[in-house]
Amino acid sequence: MTARPDPDWASEPATSRPAEGRLYRPDGTAKDLVWQVPEEVPVAIMHNSVSTAVMMATPADLEDFAVGFSLSEGFVTDPAAIRNVVALTVENGFCVDIAVDEAALKPRSVRALEGRTGCGLCGVEDIADVVKPVAPIGKAFALAPAAVQKAFAELPARQPMNKINHSVHAAAWVTPEGEIKLVREDIGRHNALDKLLGAVTREGLDRSSGFVAMTSRCSFELVQKCAHLGIAHLVTISAPTGLALHLARGAGMTLASRSPDGIVCFH
Amino acid sequence: MTARPDPDWASEPATSRPAEGRLYRPDGTAKDLVWQVPEEVPVAIMHNSVSTAVMMATPADLEDFAVGFSLSEGFVTDPAAIRNVVALTVENGFCVDIAVDEAALKPRSVRALEGRTGCGLCGVEDIADVVKPVAPIGKAFALAPAAVQKAFAELPARQPMNKINHSVHAAAWVTPEGEIKLVREDIGRHNALDKLLGAVTREGLDRSSGFVAMTSRCSFELVQKCAHLGIAHLVTISAPTGLALHLARGAGMTLASRSPDGIVCFH
Repeated sequence: MTARPDPDWASEPATSRPAEGRLYRPDGTAKDLVWQVPEEVPVAIMHNSVSTAVMMATPADLEDFAVGFSLSEGFVTDPAAIRNVVALTVENGFCVDIAVDEAALKPRSVRALEGRTGCGLCGVEDIADVVKPVAPIGKAFALAPAAVQKAFAELPARQPMNKINHSVHAAAWVTPEGEIKLVREDIGRHNALDKLLGAVTREGLDRSSGFVAMTSRCSFELVQKCAHLGIAHLVTISAPTGLALHLARGAGMTLASRSPDGIVCFH
Repeated sequence: MTARPDPDWASEPATSRPAEGRLYRPDGTAKDLVWQVPEEVPVAIMHNSVSTAVMMATPADLEDFAVGFSLSEGFVTDPAAIRNVVALTVENGFCVDIAVDEAALKPRSVRALEGRTGCGLCGVEDIADVVKPVAPIGKAFALAPAAVQKAFAELPARQPMNKINHSVHAAAWVTPEGEIKLVREDIGRHNALDKLLGAVTREGLDRSSGFVAMTSRCSFELVQKCAHLGIAHLVTISAPTGLALHLARGAGMTLASRSPDGIVCFH
């Protein structure tokens, strides 16, 4: 993997590309068309120039992504120990190198990790290692259903990438009153969340000052990532899994979902 | 991880569980309710009693899943070399052990693999290893848009798990005329596909005799899995990614998606 600075890096890498196809209508007529489809590229995450993981992600906000991933998966234990974050294009993908004090870096196993856009994190050996214990979350503000409604109503207007390709997830950082402060997008839901968590950290926002709203369903790794950063409420457009609910209960985290009739908060 | 036969194994393990919550309506009223949420459990896949991977999946059709995963990811090179498939409950999850002739087993790396419900496969070290080259697919029947329409119209009636929890993906094996022969469901799209590919193999169906239709978007690993088994056409409800299209072109595979106006076949 040879790092080479991309002359176009100053401009954002493309997150969608045009794809030519032919539409066949039920009435038997047809026409050519062009769709914008989302990009999905390998992103190597490195700590002090040693590879930790390769994830498939949409190439935007990669510095946020690498910082969020490092914190939410416990590779970096203290955000204050991060000295620098550099994103580069490399052959066939991207690389983000995080310079971090060694004391705040989790000891590396012999394994590197790889994940696809649908995946959270890879590399464990046993079932007992897949679902990690989550620490209880401290006292937090109560989640207001009206704030969740407000955030979901505003979210579509804050998804520029999705406006183009209609295929990517969004994760939003929302105030207790329902005001969206930050949004990050990716074809993988856990990547969108990691980008958001990285952005929240890099902008120095208080993690107890808001909640996370996402356009996806709620699988267990989203709960695990939010719990790891002490975030008290996670709301998603679709339902949580049984395991996500189980983990959230253990952590004292609120999970809520949208239903056709309103907002459902799970006990 | 201690394997112990579950006395309830004879009956299928539950794929959904009830979750209690409270619905808050926009008009300020509220009521308690119960939702069925999908299960997501660790499944260890073993070859000759040695662990190869731990995947997060919905606990149904696990023998199909393990066989499909083993073939689509290249761990087992010849389905005829599979002697036996045994699924067991284990502490905190499930285990499927495939007895297979050693000659047909890919040499194991030192690493075991883990994947979440959104993920395909884990454990590579370098970007170049994430996207594997796919072999060109042999001559196949032409994909008929009317057959795709027919399959998508029939699919909802063939998704019993989704009828209960409204949260799981389906992968269907469809004849060139659009008749659905097999359906498998899972909370992870790549798991649903692996279950289907395993079922197609275990039922001895000719892989050139049909196409795959899925309720998900089309990420690159779905193309890679189908190409690995020589399947010529993959149709999905949502759009493919740029990388999925690139891989499909290289393999000579047709990708098609549903649009509000009909079926879009990509060039």
